[in-house]
Amino acid sequence: MADRISALRQLAADNDADAILVTHPPDLRWALGFSGSNGLLAVRDDDALFVTDGRYTEQARQQVARVPTAIAASGLAEHVAGSGFLTGVQRAVVSSDHLTVSAFETMTSALGGTEVIPVRQLVAVAIATKTLAEIEGVRQAQLVTADVFDAVLPFLRAGVSERDIAAEIVYQHLKKGAEAMSFEPIVAAGARGALPHARPSEHVLAEGDLVVIDMGGIVDGFCSDMTRTVAIGDPGDDAREAYAVVLEAQMAAVHAARAGMTGSALDRVARDVIEQAGFGDAFSHSLGHGVGYEVHEWPRLSQHVEHVLPVGATVTIEPGVYLPGLFGIRIEDIVALREGGADNLTTPTKELLIL
Amino acid sequence: MADRISALRQLAADNDADAILVTHPPDLRWALGFSGSNGLLAVRDDDALFVTDGRYTEQARQQVARVPTAIAASGLAEHVAGSGFLTGVQRAVVSSDHLTVSAFETMTSALGGTEVIPVRQLVAVAIATKTLAEIEGVRQAQLVTADVFDAVLPFLRAGVSERDIAAEIVYQHLKKGAEAMSFEPIVAAGARGALPHARPSEHVLAEGDLVVIDMGGIVDGFCSDMTRTVAIGDPGDDAREAYAVVLEAQMAAVHAARAGMTGSALDRVARDVIEQAGFGDAFSHSLGHGVGYEVHEWPRLSQHVEHVLPVGATVTIEPGVYLPGLFGIRIEDIVALREGGADNLTTPTKELLIL
Repeated sequence: MADRISALRQLAADNDADAILVTHPPDLRWALGFSGSNGLLAVRDDDALFVTDGRYTEQARQQVARVPTAIAASGLAEHVAGSGFLTGVQRAVVSSDHLTVSAFETMTSALGGTEVIPVRQLVAVAIATKTLAEIEGVRQAQLVTADVFDAVLPFLRAGVSERDIAAEIVYQHLKKGAEAMSFEPIVAAGARGALPHARPSEHVLAEGDLVVIDMGGIVDGFCSDMTRTVAIGDPGDDAREAYAVVLEAQMAAVHAARAGMTGSALDRVARDVIEQAGFGDAFSHSLGHGVGYEVHEWPRLSQHVEHVLPVGATVTIEPGVYLPGLFGIRIEDIVALREGGADNLTTPTKELLIL
Repeated sequence: MADRISALRQLAADNDADAILVTHPPDLRWALGFSGSNGLLAVRDDDALFVTDGRYTEQARQQVARVPTAIAASGLAEHVAGSGFLTGVQRAVVSSDHLTVSAFETMTSALGGTEVIPVRQLVAVAIATKTLAEIEGVRQAQLVTADVFDAVLPFLRAGVSERDIAAEIVYQHLKKGAEAMSFEPIVAAGARGALPHARPSEHVLAEGDLVVIDMGGIVDGFCSDMTRTVAIGDPGDDAREAYAVVLEAQMAAVHAARAGMTGSALDRVARDVIEQAGFGDAFSHSLGHGVGYEVHEWPRLSQHVEHVLPVGATVTIEPGVYLPGLFGIRIEDIVALREGGADNLTTPTKELLIL
């Protein structure tokens, strides 16, 4: 992880600071391999210090090899202050995207002599620029979810409730090695599929329904995220036609995806297909997002922001069409971006399955 | 929910502010009954306004009856600013405990004319002071977890992995009506039980193990939280003796619990029993915490803070003894505090089950 400490040191310098503080657990997993829920990593010009609490003494010993580690009796920032690690440091930067105002106040108060400056997306680009090993981690997580999809297919039939299918999805993830879910599964049948963030309900699947299934787990610290839309019997011509449009848009975006382009340009590739088919208003969200240590990471693939996609970014590509009162369709893969193209980490078929 | 709006108005006044802003989803569920993941409630002297985004148009219509609701096209605070709702408001308070520094900056920037003041535990005491209906909600959640405990007992036997038991716990919660887990279950067998926050692993239960099982789900918006420690065959005299000490401490605290005392005094009741038995150093965490809309709410039952426990507070009582390399024991109920006593919402036996 020595390269990560160097990268953090560089980010401090880029922000005219003498030190950088990292507190968000997924960021700590990226920087140190530490998987606990509470820690503070401080990096300055020639040194680094990691502080956690007594619950993680043994875990920190196993996971954090190259950075000196201390166990704080009370607050982590207090411990850093008391250790003298920041003596002489004028300015320290910290990511403001997950730190609460209360925690920031506690930190600034403890580190009285050092000005702590909150910065947005401080480590986001560095985290998005994934190594081959990290991409492999995301692939393994996505393969578990692909296995789960196969295991859940027999449950997708008329008369079964969305909630029971969601329970099976969670159970299968945990049985197949996920440490937790990366988000609560979405199982939305028929007209409920037109609500992009519907929660699984007691609603039961009926003949002719399209069913949107959006799910992901956390495997060895990496998040999966996959959506498939299947039909319970014949969904009718309108649904088949709309499905073909979403699939064409999704495949066009997978084909066009490469490092160096903007997320908005990639969103545009899929959106053009859907608009030309007359469903433009029905694609009511953005194309995708980074995924890895968290299920939603920088960058966004959205019309509204101009994030340039770095080499190594693992991003979702998930266009959808939602027709209120009728049905919803979404198809989502994770791809890993490289120069000139992208590798799809997602294996299950995208042909419309009629079950 | 009119009383909740009045309570919020009073909290603004108590903090010398003209308005109060609420953004944390569990706080919105408390204030409005709204269960979505994104919203902003603004309350001023003579009016209230709730803003959410387009994903929740229908849900807000169903859940938010008494407060005018608007759907924001972009940022929620921007919408509030554009609506003129805060015109003339000098000072607005917002809870700083969950609001990120980035979100706070976005909010203050959008609400330029109004000074936004972050306050710790702004709504915590109000939320802790639960109505009978809310206590009943926590009881129903805890009953689901009690049912899950019964359903999982047959899986607790030598040769089964902690992870498979955890998967069964999650599956049973979802099948029995939980919308999600309130936290990832802890299943920690043998020496792993001495790590109070162990994650379920591939480690398999062995004859003679004590197994710590700490679990909870979210049912109709309320969180459960229960721990039982069971034995797989005869655990030996040392384990039986320590179990008896923890049980005595737990029951002494349940018996002593009442509104008006401090959390530290209640912690002391259990800690005295454990210290007198010679296990003081092995009780390495605090006695408990509030639980309801979130699995960890104010107040804390800890030696280190002096929270006075209000009438209606639903709190966990969960002493433990952890002997590194040997075993861990924790027993946890949720009780609801009233004048002069407490009602235990937790039904499964606390006698040592030898399976």
